[in-house]
Amino acid sequence: MKRVKVAIVGASGYSGEELLRLLQHHPGVEITCITSRQYAGERIGKVFPRFAESQLVFSAPDAGAIAAAAEVAFLALPHGLATEFALPLLAAGVKVVDISADFRLRDPAKYQKYYKEAHPSPAMLERAVYGLPERYRAQLAGADLVACAGCYPTSIILPTAAILAAGLASPEGITAASLSGVSGAGRKVDLPYIFPECNESVRPYAITGHRHLPEIEQELAAAAGLPEIAISFVPHLIPVNRGIHSTILLDAAPGATPDQVAAALRDAYAAEPFVRLLPKGELADTKHVTMTNFCEIGWAWDDHTGRILLSSAIDNLTKGASGQAIQCMNILCGLPETTGLLL
Amino acid sequence: MKRVKVAIVGASGYSGEELLRLLQHHPGVEITCITSRQYAGERIGKVFPRFAESQLVFSAPDAGAIAAAAEVAFLALPHGLATEFALPLLAAGVKVVDISADFRLRDPAKYQKYYKEAHPSPAMLERAVYGLPERYRAQLAGADLVACAGCYPTSIILPTAAILAAGLASPEGITAASLSGVSGAGRKVDLPYIFPECNESVRPYAITGHRHLPEIEQELAAAAGLPEIAISFVPHLIPVNRGIHSTILLDAAPGATPDQVAAALRDAYAAEPFVRLLPKGELADTKHVTMTNFCEIGWAWDDHTGRILLSSAIDNLTKGASGQAIQCMNILCGLPETTGLLL
Amino acid sequence: MKRVKVAIVGASGYSGEELLRLLQHHPGVEITCITSRQYAGERIGKVFPRFAESQLVFSAPDAGAIAAAAEVAFLALPHGLATEFALPLLAAGVKVVDISADFRLRDPAKYQKYYKEAHPSPAMLERAVYGLPERYRAQLAGADLVACAGCYPTSIILPTAAILAAGLASPEGITAASLSGVSGAGRKVDLPYIFPECNESVRPYAITGHRHLPEIEQELAAAAGLPEIAISFVPHLIPVNRGIHSTILLDAAPGATPDQVAAALRDAYAAEPFVRLLPKGELADTKHVTMTNFCEIGWAWDDHTGRILLSSAIDNLTKGASGQAIQCMNILCGLPETTGLLL
Amino acid sequence: MKRVKVAIVGASGYSGEELLRLLQHHPGVEITCITSRQYAGERIGKVFPRFAESQLVFSAPDAGAIAAAAEVAFLALPHGLATEFALPLLAAGVKVVDISADFRLRDPAKYQKYYKEAHPSPAMLERAVYGLPERYRAQLAGADLVACAGCYPTSIILPTAAILAAGLASPEGITAASLSGVSGAGRKVDLPYIFPECNESVRPYAITGHRHLPEIEQELAAAAGLPEIAISFVPHLIPVNRGIHSTILLDAAPGATPDQVAAALRDAYAAEPFVRLLPKGELADTKHVTMTNFCEIGWAWDDHTGRILLSSAIDNLTKGASGQAIQCMNILCGLPETTGLLL
Repeated sequence: MKRVKVAIVGASGYSGEELLRLLQHHPGVEITCITSRQYAGERIGKVFPRFAESQLVFSAPDAGAIAAAAEVAFLALPHGLATEFALPLLAAGVKVVDISADFRLRDPAKYQKYYKEAHPSPAMLERAVYGLPERYRAQLAGADLVACAGCYPTSIILPTAAILAAGLASPEGITAASLSGVSGAGRKVDLPYIFPECNESVRPYAITGHRHLPEIEQELAAAAGLPEIAISFVPHLIPVNRGIHSTILLDAAPGATPDQVAAALRDAYAAEPFVRLLPKGELADTKHVTMTNFCEIGWAWDDHTGRILLSSAIDNLTKGASGQAIQCMNILCGLPETTGLLL
Repeated sequence: MKRVKVAIVGASGYSGEELLRLLQHHPGVEITCITSRQYAGERIGKVFPRFAESQLVFSAPDAGAIAAAAEVAFLALPHGLATEFALPLLAAGVKVVDISADFRLRDPAKYQKYYKEAHPSPAMLERAVYGLPERYRAQLAGADLVACAGCYPTSIILPTAAILAAGLASPEGITAASLSGVSGAGRKVDLPYIFPECNESVRPYAITGHRHLPEIEQELAAAAGLPEIAISFVPHLIPVNRGIHSTILLDAAPGATPDQVAAALRDAYAAEPFVRLLPKGELADTKHVTMTNFCEIGWAWDDHTGRILLSSAIDNLTKGASGQAIQCMNILCGLPETTGLLL
Repeated sequence: MKRVKVAIVGASGYSGEELLRLLQHHPGVEITCITSRQYAGERIGKVFPRFAESQLVFSAPDAGAIAAAAEVAFLALPHGLATEFALPLLAAGVKVVDISADFRLRDPAKYQKYYKEAHPSPAMLERAVYGLPERYRAQLAGADLVACAGCYPTSIILPTAAILAAGLASPEGITAASLSGVSGAGRKVDLPYIFPECNESVRPYAITGHRHLPEIEQELAAAAGLPEIAISFVPHLIPVNRGIHSTILLDAAPGATPDQVAAALRDAYAAEPFVRLLPKGELADTKHVTMTNFCEIGWAWDDHTGRILLSSAIDNLTKGASGQAIQCMNILCGLPETTGLLL
Repeated sequence: MKRVKVAIVGASGYSGEELLRLLQHHPGVEITCITSRQYAGERIGKVFPRFAESQLVFSAPDAGAIAAAAEVAFLALPHGLATEFALPLLAAGVKVVDISADFRLRDPAKYQKYYKEAHPSPAMLERAVYGLPERYRAQLAGADLVACAGCYPTSIILPTAAILAAGLASPEGITAASLSGVSGAGRKVDLPYIFPECNESVRPYAITGHRHLPEIEQELAAAAGLPEIAISFVPHLIPVNRGIHSTILLDAAPGATPDQVAAALRDAYAAEPFVRLLPKGELADTKHVTMTNFCEIGWAWDDHTGRILLSSAIDNLTKGASGQAIQCMNILCGLPETTGLLL
């Protein structure tokens, strides 16, 4: 297998660590450049001791040097910085797979509303393909800029979009309660994230205006064939390292049946290599998917309220970030989609 | 202060431990009898080493002996067994404060539906007062049988009933997503509860037909002045020892305003010694209430969906079980309601 | 009971929080002043939401104001700062109970060696009484400056000193392996203490030159009647919020017997209100003592190696810091020693 | 690569799960038989949902069927049962890699002493090769019965044997303090292992007579060239899922130097694919090795006591059990030793 030369830009956070974990054993890839402003010159084992055996060395991030070294660049940068690198890389012919939220929204007005500033390059929002292979596989094949789906969005869109696309539930009144492990906050050194503040604690946060909300709504609206959808999205922080669980409640459409729900999920995902469908009445558990690229989807039909309950679990760093980015890269580069992701 | 003689029947589980923790320092109480079938004859320190200094000894449960020793009996028994003890104890003039679910439902048909058997003594369902002081204080004062509110129900009913009673939200389409620590399952020795199965895991369970559901709906219907309400209640198990958090979403009634929500909560609970109201937009966190009898209530108004979001946190073993039982007992016995509960 | 006026200086860390938790319900105390540079002007509920009901307000730390308000000042300050406050407070007649390490070492040379700077006020090292009531009760009664024993030292000194004082073990070759919860690092916002770096991790640290080492050795030497002792002290960080466990291994003295070990511990601590002695062969567990001022001590006799194994558990924030400080304060002020500490 | 046919006997515990995780992606192996008395007839996804995509089905354990299906059998059985299967399997020409403790001790008297019964087949103790490749690689190459090193023993023997073999420390007075995650107890449904009993708790156990003790001493004596060694071994249970950390203290031999320690470790392990040597003064952390087959070894020289401190970390289920078993199998079968273990 000819190896694709890849760069990891901003490799010292948890998404970067997960890219390193997976790409070091990816048979179709050669890591030719990894960058970190803070750790330039250091071997990666200095930052991530579990990679002590690797000879890889961080370099300072420089678009020219990245373009010279790589055919594909993964951007694992804080919000805002991704655009800065994506522009020159694309101009130099490098394909860009971005893990940040910079290119996920199609509507610059939504970006402005949720990020409190104008998007620096609205043209790139049009150019970017949403990096959720189960729903955008065809478009990803020819893309050069991928906006990988976020962690909460992946866990909510996958189960919900299939139901909405099949017309089995009302697009109104949808509620998603999501629970995320602390690594979802990134490698962030801040009081709310120190161990004694997180352990033996659970709390919701950002219950209005979370930046993942417009992304989720954009994709659910697309699935439902509507211009807009408004949902309730309640993220909670729980004391686990890795994993996101989402419970989504939808009002069943008049006449919809449990068999149709089963069929809709089956039709959408039975052939998907990274979606695990559970039988009716069984629910997802994060521990079944941590350290994997799987999304586990369970569901139930609630006669009591006439609602469909969807339950999904992913590893926020794998299917919710770096694994998904690699899955997209495999498609972009014409590699078998599961390459490097089934170990 | 004259001390009330109390018995703890079934004292070797986590609710029993919490009763012991609190009652040993309760200035208005003398523990005269604690029972455990399994540990009869042992000092309590044998089962709960943190009470090694106590001279209390478990005896085998016997209604006659309990009645001879105590004026009030706390029942911390598995479901079903409570009735067996409550009948003879009441007959002997002992007031009964039950922590199990045996007497919480007013409608025997609901009991039959959710417990899959006929209630052994429907008359007692009428006799029992629901043990949630913030909503049944007056009735508790003269009660001799208290059915303490359950842990999930307490966390959901307190915030939600105030909003429904004020007519600020629709009684339809209510969703409650709750997260419970593992002690909520009791001191149960079963594969799903061993450490490696719970740690680094989160999962919903019993999403249809949870036995707390009819209890929650009974009380919300009462608050709304309706014969019936159907809600979605989704409990999840998370890796903490103690604590329940509930997020409840309600559709705001036409014309309702955030100020009215603030006022409704304030009117209902500002004077309550064990309810902590947070300012608009702040959310509850279990770690603020663990080891206390407080219910912390936060809320937000979501313009985006026209919904009211309520957030509540309690310690499942204190305000969700044993602390609440003691609060009820204080009322029954004419003691100041916070006695022994503010330490 | 006449209430002693107390100040808490530096009350926004975990030791300060624990002092507040305990002192708010201490019947012999009135909190008249709490300080925090960072949170001056804020109610304590702003920093510690679990105290939202309290009217206490942080003020900026000022020795004059503290002296005007309080008879006893608890110092919960970072190392180095305590001296700055202790000097003027003592001069103004305020008794000082210090939780930091500033006054624990009697030998200024040891201070210089382990803290890499000269002690700012060697005279105060002579003046200070070591705040471990089980070993310095008489001296504490008349003290005006208390250097509370540290968390690791308390857990190691209590069991070990009794054995050494009885001559039952060699003072050479002693090994103490200690495990501490993360709150032991204080409310420190630093990468090694964020949740994903601590959870699912265990690691030793500071295995040479830990600042608690000379303190432990000073007290063990005193117990053994020797000028110096050198021990191996290995602290580890484990993913719990609260609790320290220490396992100490000593070579049994020639002729020493298990019965003598039992007797030595019994003679030293059977009458102590905050020491729990376990029977031979039973070992301490942190969960038996968290949120209490107890030190649980277990032990075993290892025929295989001729060693005595001691096992001790404390809550690092209670008996290891704030509870101990209050116990010392009770002695200083002539209050019953357990006042406010048995709840 | 021709694939070796392997069986996993007793595959429904945590060691079995870890064997399945690793062997399903091992390019030199075909899993032809997996057994479980309890789950015979079920697909492995039923027991381990993370393997839901696998077609493997548990069969009832039967030596004849195993021998018909496999060239190598991994035994992940409770103590005692391994012998029952090993005898007929060996007789049928199947190579046996045992993860239990049945064949680890060379001396039947030691077995009798620590297991309280006579060994059922002392001849097999002679036949078995100790499954610690870093120290028995040559013997393993020709073995047909491997007694894989235990989890605690691996973590202690690897660092300590190198130091003793080089004569750099006294074989007397060695102390090993070890901390193990709860999966080390197996998938055991017992009160001490339920979540609320383990979380926020740390405790030593089995401090005299642990069954791993004679195994550790046997190998350390061999390394030191002595007939016997007696050490202090103190295992603790800590609230993590996976990982063992051991801190070992040894009295430096007269004249030994830090440089010699560094050299001894380097000579022993620099070329080892699964040993990670840290620089002097750096210490091992379990989170660097979880889910890998690595043993991380750190060390320090303590001038204060004249002791050498060794620090090691492994994943108890990988290098401490199933990964090690596969490493041994690779050697037995002439496969590159790291095959399937570097992912």
